[in-house]
Amino acid sequence: MKPNKPLRTLTAFAGIGYVITTTMIPRVSEVFIKVGLKGRDMSKKPPVAEIPESMGIVVAVTYLTLMLALIPFVFFKYLVNFASMSNDEEVSETYLQQYNTLSHNHLFPHNKLAEYLSAVLCLQSTTLLGLFDDLFDIRWRDKFFLPSIASLPLLIVYYVDFSVTSIVVPSFITESQWGSLLLANVEFLIRWGNIVVSRITGLTFSTLAPDYYIKTAIKVPKMLDLGVFYYLYMSAVSIFSPNSINILAGVNGLEVGQLIVLGIILLLNDSCYLFSNSISQAARDSHLFSALFIIPFIGVSLGLLQYNWFPAKVFVGDTYCYFSGMVFAIVGILGHFSKTLMIFLLPQIINFVYSVPQLFHIVPCPRHRLPKFDVEDGLMYPSYGEVTTTGGSALQRIMFNTLEVFGLISLKRDKNGDITHFSNMTIINLILVRLGPLREDALCMVILLLQLITGISMIAFRHTVGPWLFGYDNLTWGVK
Amino acid sequence: MKPNKPLRTLTAFAGIGYVITTTMIPRVSEVFIKVGLKGRDMSKKPPVAEIPESMGIVVAVTYLTLMLALIPFVFFKYLVNFASMSNDEEVSETYLQQYNTLSHNHLFPHNKLAEYLSAVLCLQSTTLLGLFDDLFDIRWRDKFFLPSIASLPLLIVYYVDFSVTSIVVPSFITESQWGSLLLANVEFLIRWGNIVVSRITGLTFSTLAPDYYIKTAIKVPKMLDLGVFYYLYMSAVSIFSPNSINILAGVNGLEVGQLIVLGIILLLNDSCYLFSNSISQAARDSHLFSALFIIPFIGVSLGLLQYNWFPAKVFVGDTYCYFSGMVFAIVGILGHFSKTLMIFLLPQIINFVYSVPQLFHIVPCPRHRLPKFDVEDGLMYPSYGEVTTTGGSALQRIMFNTLEVFGLISLKRDKNGDITHFSNMTIINLILVRLGPLREDALCMVILLLQLITGISMIAFRHTVGPWLFGYDNLTWGVK
Repeated sequence: MKPNKPLRTLTAFAGIGYVITTTMIPRVSEVFIKVGLKGRDMSKKPPVAEIPESMGIVVAVTYLTLMLALIPFVFFKYLVNFASMSNDEEVSETYLQQYNTLSHNHLFPHNKLAEYLSAVLCLQSTTLLGLFDDLFDIRWRDKFFLPSIASLPLLIVYYVDFSVTSIVVPSFITESQWGSLLLANVEFLIRWGNIVVSRITGLTFSTLAPDYYIKTAIKVPKMLDLGVFYYLYMSAVSIFSPNSINILAGVNGLEVGQLIVLGIILLLNDSCYLFSNSISQAARDSHLFSALFIIPFIGVSLGLLQYNWFPAKVFVGDTYCYFSGMVFAIVGILGHFSKTLMIFLLPQIINFVYSVPQLFHIVPCPRHRLPKFDVEDGLMYPSYGEVTTTGGSALQRIMFNTLEVFGLISLKRDKNGDITHFSNMTIINLILVRLGPLREDALCMVILLLQLITGISMIAFRHTVGPWLFGYDNLTWGVK
Repeated sequence: MKPNKPLRTLTAFAGIGYVITTTMIPRVSEVFIKVGLKGRDMSKKPPVAEIPESMGIVVAVTYLTLMLALIPFVFFKYLVNFASMSNDEEVSETYLQQYNTLSHNHLFPHNKLAEYLSAVLCLQSTTLLGLFDDLFDIRWRDKFFLPSIASLPLLIVYYVDFSVTSIVVPSFITESQWGSLLLANVEFLIRWGNIVVSRITGLTFSTLAPDYYIKTAIKVPKMLDLGVFYYLYMSAVSIFSPNSINILAGVNGLEVGQLIVLGIILLLNDSCYLFSNSISQAARDSHLFSALFIIPFIGVSLGLLQYNWFPAKVFVGDTYCYFSGMVFAIVGILGHFSKTLMIFLLPQIINFVYSVPQLFHIVPCPRHRLPKFDVEDGLMYPSYGEVTTTGGSALQRIMFNTLEVFGLISLKRDKNGDITHFSNMTIINLILVRLGPLREDALCMVILLLQLITGISMIAFRHTVGPWLFGYDNLTWGVK
């Protein structure tokens, strides 16, 4: 056993993960149906057989087991360095000398191990949460905030290891008068909030700049220290990421597909850093950490996709959406690019924002907002919500009409011209409104392609417009 | 918020755990029944209603959440020390100075955090495993070894943090000629095995004496370095502890009761160390770690006991047995007293050894070995297994007759004197054989009392006969 090329080991683990999931899923399907984890696909021609639900459990458990088994490989060189202190000849030496070697313990990167363990722990808590949701149907308001408990160990590790709570302020703000004034006010409020929190908890959300700003930047950019609010932000990422993925769902292959695409986008972003020779060690570590969690994830997810792609033989369940959303939240938080992650989640964010009027019941929200399946031609059509009062409230009318002007909704009117129905406000329905009826796999493919294109544009944006806006890019520093 | 007295904080957490479990259990009961996690109590007078199964899930999840919430309290003083580097005035200082404070990171005990996280992770894996078993009925041979995968992170942390793989050899062995010869041979085989493993894996299972041997012992005791075999032993503890608890079960209140008693015994043992002024810091840390995990465990378990005690309103399920067995395995392994833990598990060990002939099908084993409930008088009677061949095989006859001589089994014979039935070989049945029929709660109480008495005797034994056998006691060193 020799020290491993990390990417090669990870690819091997992804392969193993793929083999395990594809082997396990058909084997456990029957048992899942027997315990009631099953459902009918409403977008297929009858007779529709019951197929197993919550198959994401298999994926999550496989992934977690792989990540545990990966620990010795990740820390291999440290394990060997440390252990090679004592060899066969030394066995007979005195205990005192052996005791002295204990001081070499500090060679082992315990902080990295704590980071890794907190990530796996957080994923496992999320899997448990998803499983309970699949089994017991937890109420929406209960489950919405639960991911933030799961992410607690993560935030603690972040607190003790990095404490970086500053964000870079775009130069167009610092260079304008109004911008500077606004910034000064925001800084004042944030500092005041932080002092209050410090007095109550005794903790200081300290203000350390990331080391790569110090070591390599010629011009230190203007930083805004968010302090405790940065932790609230990270907690929000861990809530938003799983939930936003969970609502872009309901089409065969879409849940798994969007996450594989997201994984590929993040890997592309990681490789910008990993295959560059001129980046700081900190950035390299961050993006290796990201690849570490994403490559095996793609492996197990491909196994699931094979069974969930149109026509689906299994459903993925909430477990999968929660679990995978958290994989990306973790990578973003511990890899220190949670803001970059957010721009890669743009399709999910747009879908969420677009859904807000229905989610918060500003307009009526039917129990399911899935597109409608037509048994005759086998195509998917947009589904419609019904306006309850005649023509809708004033607010609803304004919103519907505005959206209609931009072609972002399809409305049905009665003979008086009053709105009676509106296409449900999800990206999925919107695509069907714009492109016309599609077969389920074509619909899924369109969304995935859109996401891939958005993601690649965002990578380009991140490394071209980003530096221009912020006055620096952490990728190009070394060569400046 | 001030630094906390650890025992007071832990007691408060135990109280919170008790309140949460007693509140949650009645609330989720109906949902559990609805998803099929339910069973009938066979030891009650009909009509017997269905009651919820697997209620241990609630306990495990409550406990895990508490342990996550406990992290900031456990590491509070470090968090404050570390963070207090920067205060309000320093906020405006340069980034370079802030960067320098990063080096203070080493003040935080990352290895302790990694230890803590690996323990919680291991417990969570075990909970998932138990849950799958309750839901899907995993095959016996599959689930038997699964706890060892769950304990993998634990062993890795042990490897990088302690690496102590030596055990003390009793002085009566080293002082006798035969003993020394045997020891030399064992040492040779162990070293040879370790060399082979090192050549294959590249890892050295190094041989460091625990620091308290060095710092305080006047006479260093003879140590036997087990190397990699110590890891196998710890892995075996993590398999044995959950499984042995799982087979001493089937009477209302017994699963929970035995674990609460075990918890109390371990706490008594811990307090021998914690309230002594003359122990090493290492021993103090170990036993504080143990109390840290056991006190909240007792809190949540008491909540479950309230509903599981005769007449039971809920069943605990495999989840609870696996989860709690692992709590103790972890405490034993990371607290460095897995050998002491084994002597506290004596009733479970005896029950296991006594069960071996049935578990390995040397004698017939009916599907259930629970005592028999008599509907007439409401008492529990020993249940009997049936001998399949006339009078049993020669081996069976020898075993049954020997056990009968010592009063350790009850046999039924036909008119020819051939054995036809034998009392099922569990401690529970044996007690009924010896004491006669008992009501279910009396039976449970007898077993729990037996366990408590055994445990307290073992504490006394550990600190009196132990030192005499081994030539030292880690408790009394400081005062020698």
